[in-house]
Amino acid sequence: MDIPQNHPRYLSLKYRHRIVDGLKQGFVADSGLIAHGRGEAYDYLLGEKTCDPALNAEKAAVAAMLLSENPVISVNGNSAALVPGEIVELAESLNAKIEINLFYRTLEREQLIEKILKDNGADRVYGVGDRDMQSIPGLSSQRKRAAKEASWSADTILVPLEDGDRAEALVSTGKCTITIDLNPLSRTSKSATIPIVDNIVRARPNMIHISEKLRSWNAEKLMELHNSFNAQECLNSMVGIIRKGF
Amino acid sequence: MDIPQNHPRYLSLKYRHRIVDGLKQGFVADSGLIAHGRGEAYDYLLGEKTCDPALNAEKAAVAAMLLSENPVISVNGNSAALVPGEIVELAESLNAKIEINLFYRTLEREQLIEKILKDNGADRVYGVGDRDMQSIPGLSSQRKRAAKEASWSADTILVPLEDGDRAEALVSTGKCTITIDLNPLSRTSKSATIPIVDNIVRARPNMIHISEKLRSWNAEKLMELHNSFNAQECLNSMVGIIRKGF
Repeated sequence: MDIPQNHPRYLSLKYRHRIVDGLKQGFVADSGLIAHGRGEAYDYLLGEKTCDPALNAEKAAVAAMLLSENPVISVNGNSAALVPGEIVELAESLNAKIEINLFYRTLEREQLIEKILKDNGADRVYGVGDRDMQSIPGLSSQRKRAAKEASWSADTILVPLEDGDRAEALVSTGKCTITIDLNPLSRTSKSATIPIVDNIVRARPNMIHISEKLRSWNAEKLMELHNSFNAQECLNSMVGIIRKGF
Repeated sequence: MDIPQNHPRYLSLKYRHRIVDGLKQGFVADSGLIAHGRGEAYDYLLGEKTCDPALNAEKAAVAAMLLSENPVISVNGNSAALVPGEIVELAESLNAKIEINLFYRTLEREQLIEKILKDNGADRVYGVGDRDMQSIPGLSSQRKRAAKEASWSADTILVPLEDGDRAEALVSTGKCTITIDLNPLSRTSKSATIPIVDNIVRARPNMIHISEKLRSWNAEKLMELHNSFNAQECLNSMVGIIRKGF
């Protein structure tokens, strides 16, 4: 990419380039580009920075993952394109499993994403192929797929980017569902146990940093942090920030 | 496209499909999908309907075009994908020329779009190939291209979708510059002589309808309508509508 680093839109263009490159490589879906554009619009309204309520959500999310028996990080095409290294690093820090979950699922896309994650240091990637797959009730799309040892049995699941149906279905199974979605009014954000209204390219490094700190905390302290988070208040604050920016 | 017409997101999915189809045919750019996504986000905030201030802008825009000596409608990949028939119909109704202008310009893309417009009834399409092309000052991208008989000599130009640099450069040449951009805070909207903050798929049919009515008006009456429009007030109202919706 030949954009100078001092270009005012450097970061935005860099991540846009990664998405377009993922499309060319075949693991980002056409609709992933459109979803990325929606995200750009909301991020612009947030001032392209992590707002305080989002940072609190990220802290609560890390605490929830550290308290979990079987935490899972779900990966789609866009998140693999944007932050592959950070997915693996966060999973290691949280001792979480990684599982691929695609709306426009093909084995080829799964394998391309698996390779990217392994090239970035992942040991094991779930959700590739049909072995040991279950179906989350209430979903008809390929997003219903859940690896038995990973998201099917997860008590906490981190879902990147937007898919309202799946977020709702996961919450219905009783799992602590953490979402990353820049629209505080989306069904995804509204249904999540812990909605992170932030750009995934900022949320992931933030969460890695938070995890390094919180790993030494005891369960009681983590629980206290987790319980202090209120999803509805967080979303209200984020809506207020956007409204103020307009 | 096998989406049932009673699907709550039918229209949104229909137009998304046209953009993706344009990418596959080779005349919509990758970044056109991302731009479409940004538009979806802003349109969602507007309630996916034409708001009153936008309708007033559409009326003023039609009046300006009807008062012009040489009105031109600029076409890019996304507008050709979304409303090809309406571009031709509006140009006929306003007696305006049609010119293709692409950021990621290739002769092949120009020819594909020319074919689509001619298939939809256009007689002549400007901006294809290098004959009689001039350069708008202040633009370094391929967007500077301006056909001598069309946008170069236009007194009024209708620019669809977003490109802040070009909108500003066109305004600097003294042309009445009408934009269609769903973000009332964009440089495009802020610099335009007449900013239409509406989805192009609604703005174009609206403008055809308005033109059929206003064509019988005399110049004085058209001028009165045109002069009653205030760009800054219009944008302020649109911002207010979005803020209220949040």
